[in-house]
Amino acid sequence: MHNHFMARAIALSIENVRSGRGGPFAALIVEDGKVVAEAVNCVTASNDPTAHAEVTAIRAACGAAGKFDLAGSVMYASCEPCPMCLGAIYWARLDRVYFANTAADAANAGFDDALIYRELARPFADRKIPLIPLMRDEALEAFRAWEAQRDKIGY
Amino acid sequence: MHNHFMARAIALSIENVRSGRGGPFAALIVEDGKVVAEAVNCVTASNDPTAHAEVTAIRAACGAAGKFDLAGSVMYASCEPCPMCLGAIYWARLDRVYFANTAADAANAGFDDALIYRELARPFADRKIPLIPLMRDEALEAFRAWEAQRDKIGY
Repeated sequence: MHNHFMARAIALSIENVRSGRGGPFAALIVEDGKVVAEAVNCVTASNDPTAHAEVTAIRAACGAAGKFDLAGSVMYASCEPCPMCLGAIYWARLDRVYFANTAADAANAGFDDALIYRELARPFADRKIPLIPLMRDEALEAFRAWEAQRDKIGY
Repeated sequence: MHNHFMARAIALSIENVRSGRGGPFAALIVEDGKVVAEAVNCVTASNDPTAHAEVTAIRAACGAAGKFDLAGSVMYASCEPCPMCLGAIYWARLDRVYFANTAADAANAGFDDALIYRELARPFADRKIPLIPLMRDEALEAFRAWEAQRDKIGY
């Protein structure tokens, strides 16, 4: 069962390259043994740097289900998710993720996954893309407003 | 200048809560002193767990510019980006990010940002969402196909 779904993800990832559509990545989301979404990397085809296979599969599965939470579903990804996709997986509350290629394999093929993982462990000011704090006192009002808001939908 | 753009991001984040639309987060992307995209969190409004303000702003800026790379632009985010958004920022190749609230502030308000940062540092098998390796040998074919592909668009 697991190999069946992963073989499909791998086949999609290879087809995505050979068709010239995009990068060598694909992902499936499976709920109760049924595929509810499958997606390939379409960063260059759609001019969207967030259009990794995992993010696109999550968006498709949530859109089809009309909910922002995929608890009870699992993902089969042709490659270890990058930090962006792993974050998306946490926000979507998937149960678990099967992956084939590793972040190191992706790095060897010229993708930045491993670099981004290393960057996350560095102090803000030392990163290639610096993170600069500004106006926290003013911004805290947003969280006070959130706390005070009635009938809000948590996520 | 920096305070002007951040004040706008903060105002949008507060308005997003008070209007009942979504979470207390907003982000702007600025190129050459001009706002090219602004966005708020619309996870619950759009049933999309990836629809954080930063991701949505990047998608909008890239869509408007017709490119998948925002080198030369900067982001003003009302809160420190979560790992998903930080990953998106790297893939979009923004120059730098100004942020106001911290990940700890977001955690205090009930959001999972800090938890996800901690999870990224744990071994795969010990995470709340386990990452399980499967069929790497078969999947490596996708990277061989990528290497062999002519006229591919790198990203």
